Amino acid sequence: MKKAGFKPYHYQHQAGKLRLLDQRLLPRREKWISCRTSREVYQAIRTMVVRGAPAIGIVGGYGLCLAVARFRGKNTAQFLKFLRKEAAYLKSSRPTGVNLRNVIDQMVQEAVRSKLTSVKALQKLIEQSARRLDAEDDRKCRRMGAYGSSLIPRKSNVLTHCNAGGLATSGYGTALGVFYAAHERGKKIHVFADETRPLLQGARLTAWELLRSGIPCTLLCDNAAANLLRTGKIACIVVGADRIAANGDTANKIGTYNLAVLAKEHRIPFYIAAPSTTFDFQIADGREIPIEDRLPEEVTHGFGAPTAPKNIRVLNPAFDVTPARLITAFITEQGILRPPYLKSFKKIKSAVKT
Amino acid sequence: MKKAGFKPYHYQHQAGKLRLLDQRLLPRREKWISCRTSREVYQAIRTMVVRGAPAIGIVGGYGLCLAVARFRGKNTAQFLKFLRKEAAYLKSSRPTGVNLRNVIDQMVQEAVRSKLTSVKALQKLIEQSARRLDAEDDRKCRRMGAYGSSLIPRKSNVLTHCNAGGLATSGYGTALGVFYAAHERGKKIHVFADETRPLLQGARLTAWELLRSGIPCTLLCDNAAANLLRTGKIACIVVGADRIAANGDTANKIGTYNLAVLAKEHRIPFYIAAPSTTFDFQIADGREIPIEDRLPEEVTHGFGAPTAPKNIRVLNPAFDVTPARLITAFITEQGILRPPYLKSFKKIKSAVKT
Repeated sequence: MKKAGFKPYHYQHQAGKLRLLDQRLLPRREKWISCRTSREVYQAIRTMVVRGAPAIGIVGGYGLCLAVARFRGKNTAQFLKFLRKEAAYLKSSRPTGVNLRNVIDQMVQEAVRSKLTSVKALQKLIEQSARRLDAEDDRKCRRMGAYGSSLIPRKSNVLTHCNAGGLATSGYGTALGVFYAAHERGKKIHVFADETRPLLQGARLTAWELLRSGIPCTLLCDNAAANLLRTGKIACIVVGADRIAANGDTANKIGTYNLAVLAKEHRIPFYIAAPSTTFDFQIADGREIPIEDRLPEEVTHGFGAPTAPKNIRVLNPAFDVTPARLITAFITEQGILRPPYLKSFKKIKSAVKT
Repeated sequence: MKKAGFKPYHYQHQAGKLRLLDQRLLPRREKWISCRTSREVYQAIRTMVVRGAPAIGIVGGYGLCLAVARFRGKNTAQFLKFLRKEAAYLKSSRPTGVNLRNVIDQMVQEAVRSKLTSVKALQKLIEQSARRLDAEDDRKCRRMGAYGSSLIPRKSNVLTHCNAGGLATSGYGTALGVFYAAHERGKKIHVFADETRPLLQGARLTAWELLRSGIPCTLLCDNAAANLLRTGKIACIVVGADRIAANGDTANKIGTYNLAVLAKEHRIPFYIAAPSTTFDFQIADGREIPIEDRLPEEVTHGFGAPTAPKNIRVLNPAFDVTPARLITAFITEQGILRPPYLKSFKKIKSAVKT
């Protein structure tokens, strides 16, 4: 079912059980959590045991498998009603996640359209859908990697921000997938990883993944990037994306826009690696992308003990928007898209279901 | 002796005792440490109970007072020998600190040149020198503040990095002194403070100082600055300096160069506030300023528990160098210096002892 070489290492779905690596405890502990019900999967997404939009989508899909496996009846109409209810419940675990919505909706649609007349066959179909969407994510990431690796010099230092890696997808990653692909093709790369305040996904997850994969990695504070770029040692910057507007403006983890400005100043290519499902053609430009403000405690108590005075006001946006003019190219599973984006995006526009 | 209004709030020298507010515990605890010997002052500087180049200089000066107060003899030659030994010892507590060296050297020189013939008189002179240099720092900071406040709009948001405040000086500050002066002149300012990884001087010290002074303050992660500047709400950026080369290239806390690039991109004035003693005319440009690399643990264990995988490589430069072309002006106690700096620096060149 799965393509050779596909080994998800942060989740496992088998025999009515979904096991998840608790990403909140990385890199200190590799603890697995077992889910047997959709409620447990809902909680795992909600409490960020798993994060990263594609990974949440896949895990949500398996959550739906767990749910329908527990349906005890023979009536297919009742089954589909139950399926819809569970689907809505799982989607509500992360209402803003476009991938989760897409995966679950697609699974429900397939079941409804299948016209299968036995509950058992429908249960099997749901299971197959989840595995197929899982494998599809892996395929997309690897194709992104193949395209992206052509942009990475044979021997080079690269820089990334946050975690757009295997832990955020089915195991290969988007931005990190580009590095994995370059590494697999024998390129000697050294990845510099921004720690990515406030939640330190770079320090906790990207550094962990890269060490695990044997790719040389160096960690730095976000504010040290300018000093690093100035040395001329960095060949390019590759980051992921949360949402890409029709004109190419890109929302990603806070600090991405910062890096893009620094890349321009130092004339260093700045790439976004993202599957075509991240493009949102409903949105004309970045001004329409809402920026979520998160809790002050992430900044003031990010490491347990308080590191700022009580009652201090805090600005803690989760994302920023990088204007298209600062982006050298987009790396997608359908190829590399260069400016002018209004033209190059047409290639993938038709591939995205709206 | 001290100008009215001068109230150092993080150190007190009285009756053979130097009390220091332990800055390592801020903002959680306001604990004072008592020093009665130069060894205790040496340790306090070494372990960063006190930090900030001007503050270290002043505290070192009082350390010399504590040392000579304990001299039990009548022979002035022996006294001067003892003085020199203690001076060398105290200077070695922070060998790179130019202010500490300047303060201590000046105190020794005054004693030597005084030709005083009694130990008691020499001890008194040393004490007076320390207090005078302390008050001088305050005067300089307030003059810098007066000049700098003219650059701050009547009602504005401003941004700073690290802590160039009262805690780093005799109590008024350089960059924060500009904000205090603007506030005292009735300007309605709101200070945005970068938390300043890895040691969080912005979150721990700047936020604490500003809350204490009643100036509205908002804390943000360093990587959120670009997103903030883009809103157009920030009138200007003011930061301190550790060393300024003859051409205006400026070494300051890591992340300063980052901010300067962002300021240029968003066309926001970028000011350095620093006393004339921070200018190093021995150094032609920034390339000659050595950048100290600090311990990886500051990044990986900055908050106690590890937040990165074991054995990860870390890049942790303490400072970066901002090229002169990105600096709108220097705010000094002798006035505001604008480009071309090779010309405007001449004004202060003569004031600096070499």
